[in-house]
Amino acid sequence: MPHTIHDIASALGLEAVGDTSIVIDGANEPADASATDIALAMKPEYAAGLAKGQARVAMLWEGADWQGLGLEAALFVGRSRYAMAGLSQIIDPGQHYPVGIHPSAYVDPTAELGEGVTVGPFAMVGPRARIGAGSVLGPQCFVGADVVLGEAAMIHSGARLMARVRAGDRLIVQPNAVIGGDGFAFVTPEVSGVEKARETLGDQGDVKSQSWTRIHTLGAVRLGHDVEVGSCSTIDSGTIRDTQIGDGTKIDNQVMIGHNCIIGNDCLLCGHVGLAGSVTVGNSVVLGGKTGVSDNTTIGDNVICGAATIVLSKIPAGRVMLGYPAMKMDQHLDTYKHLRRLPRLARQVAELQKAVSNEDTSD
Amino acid sequence: MPHTIHDIASALGLEAVGDTSIVIDGANEPADASATDIALAMKPEYAAGLAKGQARVAMLWEGADWQGLGLEAALFVGRSRYAMAGLSQIIDPGQHYPVGIHPSAYVDPTAELGEGVTVGPFAMVGPRARIGAGSVLGPQCFVGADVVLGEAAMIHSGARLMARVRAGDRLIVQPNAVIGGDGFAFVTPEVSGVEKARETLGDQGDVKSQSWTRIHTLGAVRLGHDVEVGSCSTIDSGTIRDTQIGDGTKIDNQVMIGHNCIIGNDCLLCGHVGLAGSVTVGNSVVLGGKTGVSDNTTIGDNVICGAATIVLSKIPAGRVMLGYPAMKMDQHLDTYKHLRRLPRLARQVAELQKAVSNEDTSD
Amino acid sequence: MPHTIHDIASALGLEAVGDTSIVIDGANEPADASATDIALAMKPEYAAGLAKGQARVAMLWEGADWQGLGLEAALFVGRSRYAMAGLSQIIDPGQHYPVGIHPSAYVDPTAELGEGVTVGPFAMVGPRARIGAGSVLGPQCFVGADVVLGEAAMIHSGARLMARVRAGDRLIVQPNAVIGGDGFAFVTPEVSGVEKARETLGDQGDVKSQSWTRIHTLGAVRLGHDVEVGSCSTIDSGTIRDTQIGDGTKIDNQVMIGHNCIIGNDCLLCGHVGLAGSVTVGNSVVLGGKTGVSDNTTIGDNVICGAATIVLSKIPAGRVMLGYPAMKMDQHLDTYKHLRRLPRLARQVAELQKAVSNEDTSD
Repeated sequence: MPHTIHDIASALGLEAVGDTSIVIDGANEPADASATDIALAMKPEYAAGLAKGQARVAMLWEGADWQGLGLEAALFVGRSRYAMAGLSQIIDPGQHYPVGIHPSAYVDPTAELGEGVTVGPFAMVGPRARIGAGSVLGPQCFVGADVVLGEAAMIHSGARLMARVRAGDRLIVQPNAVIGGDGFAFVTPEVSGVEKARETLGDQGDVKSQSWTRIHTLGAVRLGHDVEVGSCSTIDSGTIRDTQIGDGTKIDNQVMIGHNCIIGNDCLLCGHVGLAGSVTVGNSVVLGGKTGVSDNTTIGDNVICGAATIVLSKIPAGRVMLGYPAMKMDQHLDTYKHLRRLPRLARQVAELQKAVSNEDTSD
Repeated sequence: MPHTIHDIASALGLEAVGDTSIVIDGANEPADASATDIALAMKPEYAAGLAKGQARVAMLWEGADWQGLGLEAALFVGRSRYAMAGLSQIIDPGQHYPVGIHPSAYVDPTAELGEGVTVGPFAMVGPRARIGAGSVLGPQCFVGADVVLGEAAMIHSGARLMARVRAGDRLIVQPNAVIGGDGFAFVTPEVSGVEKARETLGDQGDVKSQSWTRIHTLGAVRLGHDVEVGSCSTIDSGTIRDTQIGDGTKIDNQVMIGHNCIIGNDCLLCGHVGLAGSVTVGNSVVLGGKTGVSDNTTIGDNVICGAATIVLSKIPAGRVMLGYPAMKMDQHLDTYKHLRRLPRLARQVAELQKAVSNEDTSD
Repeated sequence: MPHTIHDIASALGLEAVGDTSIVIDGANEPADASATDIALAMKPEYAAGLAKGQARVAMLWEGADWQGLGLEAALFVGRSRYAMAGLSQIIDPGQHYPVGIHPSAYVDPTAELGEGVTVGPFAMVGPRARIGAGSVLGPQCFVGADVVLGEAAMIHSGARLMARVRAGDRLIVQPNAVIGGDGFAFVTPEVSGVEKARETLGDQGDVKSQSWTRIHTLGAVRLGHDVEVGSCSTIDSGTIRDTQIGDGTKIDNQVMIGHNCIIGNDCLLCGHVGLAGSVTVGNSVVLGGKTGVSDNTTIGDNVICGAATIVLSKIPAGRVMLGYPAMKMDQHLDTYKHLRRLPRLARQVAELQKAVSNEDTSD
């Protein structure tokens, strides 16, 4: 969709200079930009590319000499990633899913679709589902019985929202994500080896073959407003009460959230994060890629875990963690610096033993 | 579906007291329970919630004073999670998939469907597939050529069972899981850098660009009775013979099982577990979340691996393991306790060096 | 499909002996082989199984006494896995997807399908997509707007190729993989705790609740020739320019490739590998299962990472790495050998302290 520089500047609250009537329909890196792209050169080091591309207009750092760079117009930004968020929303080319209720879709007659809802080819909407106005249920997606979605949901192709899932407004679910699969909950008739090993921290007692009986899932998943769930991520339903995801929490691809978890508001869970059952996560928590949290563990507000942190016990609010098992990040960096020198330390100790033992002998 | 307390007590072999003709249609935590829910208060600490909810009946710990708690009826349980398994099976609200063979489904004319089989909207059943009586093939699922399923399978929306997969009775496959994708097997014309690095434990020799030739997958996946596979989990077909999963083994979400693996009976594989190709796992093994096992490795019966254990070599039967690389759990706990103190240990060694060196000088 | 031994030998350039007119239609391990299978006994230790099976013909190691093994014909191979690649391609039984454009498929009228393209039941092809000759778009797959695929693509059931994805020839996408989901890119209006913690390596400053604004995805994914993507793997689109995967690169199951990554040619990325955003990977790199790479990190040509390596900083070309955080593999093996002995080392230091302190006292 084409936009004038004037309109973009107004929408984003940015300063614009030059011929702001120029129309653009895309954005690109400076060297790859066409004459209808806005070039993105928000740092001086990107400016050199402008000469190689065709852009007439660019988004520049504050104070840049736009005319010296050969541009006909420019927008100036402070925090460039934040400006990028605004611009990208305006010019997002989107998926071009067919609009409206596709004749091939299967919508249960008891489902209620709000105004302007799209249901794509081969999508299914189950009984009593209620879908908020302006929502898009993409091709081949599944929206199960009694699901309730707020306004302006975007459910991409192949995503599965199982029975009784409820979400606030503006839910985004990327392709092939699953919300509301059954929890992984099994029990043996007698105390199991795992239960014993946990109590004793390592001794499972007399192990005996036992088979696992399934605890069925009675709860569902409840998500707040402005939640996003990445491709192939899975959020399991709660056993009795619902698994919960707070407002504004963003979940990357291939994230696994077990049954009964409660995640606060404004969290970021990066790719391959895994939360076992009944984990509680506070508000504004950031879990780096591949972070794992064992079951029944609590993570306080504002905690940050670096990549691949393995959390086996409670983390107080505000901590920055790293490693397996998780340590405070500065302690981790110090400890692993010494770990790399450990072979040398062992040699030093051996020499000391020799020195001290020689003294003993020589006494 | 409504049930009397009397019927539930009979089905689960539990003691019931009070007005056992009361009918319930759900279960809930005490404070959230409605008048038609059974409240779950299997430990004394949960009893306080009963006063806040509306439940007339509860599942209680043995010896609880049900009348003192204001209840009209009660069930008493010993091992509460095991009782929960039975109760949850009775009152599982399920997915409400449309029953029967949906007119939009595509069933190859050579496929054989047992009595009472459901095939959901936009599901496909391939040529010569044979599906046992009472099975449910959910909406948009794929059941490929020559697949054989036992009785009472539950294949959820978007799951893919590729050609020649065979399973026993009561298979459960959660949404978007894939059973029988092609194995990840590639070979270079000459010995590759990886092969050399494995032999030398680190030296890949003169590295040279080589391209990978695909080894096609000829085998399939064979699963026993009572297997469950979680959302977005993937089990690859074997190269020549089948990949095998034993009776009663339960697989959580986003688990990856490589080609040629042989998993025994009654195992639990938690979220994000990854087994490379040709791994052999015994019976009653529990692999905690994010456990990884490198290819051609054997894990004995009754082994337990804690969260994120990385297994690079064989584990004998009965071991309880943790860490990267895997150690016995008690050794791991001891070792990492010392790892945290390593910076202090290094300082102590430095002081000793100084002390001993001073002595040398002073001698 | 049946083949004579003569034809197989010609196709693979192998030496054949005996009655090469014998026809086979499958391959199997020696003990499981039927009379129409070729037995695979490429090493002497597998020869014993031949007597238990029914095979009349086998693929044998060079110099094997095929007549002494009771065979009527034989093929001889040098590098057995490489020969297996050729044989398996010839006798791959495949998925038996219905051939041609299935009447239930939805193909946008502006899409262009090359000669002999198959589109399976309930598959969707979006507007302006261009699909190369001989490609197979499997059942229930999604090929989005403006997608361009080369010749002979094989897109399996449930795979999703989102808008503007482009690939070379012979792309293989396993079931339920997602190529071209939106990137995981969010920004706060002011500098976030994560940004501060990264700068200071652990101190996020005065933490304050902030909400995340979405950076929309404008780029797509571009893949070279001969790329394979495993089941439930996800490759996100780039923010501005495309995420790129080079020729001949093979990606296993449940691999996560973040937005803006650039992967070279002939790489192998094993199961559960995760690359955060803007990672650059050279040519002929092998990343073992569960390897993780943090964002904006560069990995040189010919690097090999062992299982579960966590890469937090740049790796020069040719390195063989292991561990968390990544070390050179030989250094890792040495360091962790000492880590296991760390409790003993600590005791030795304590004894030395005592000895030295006694000396001091006794002086």
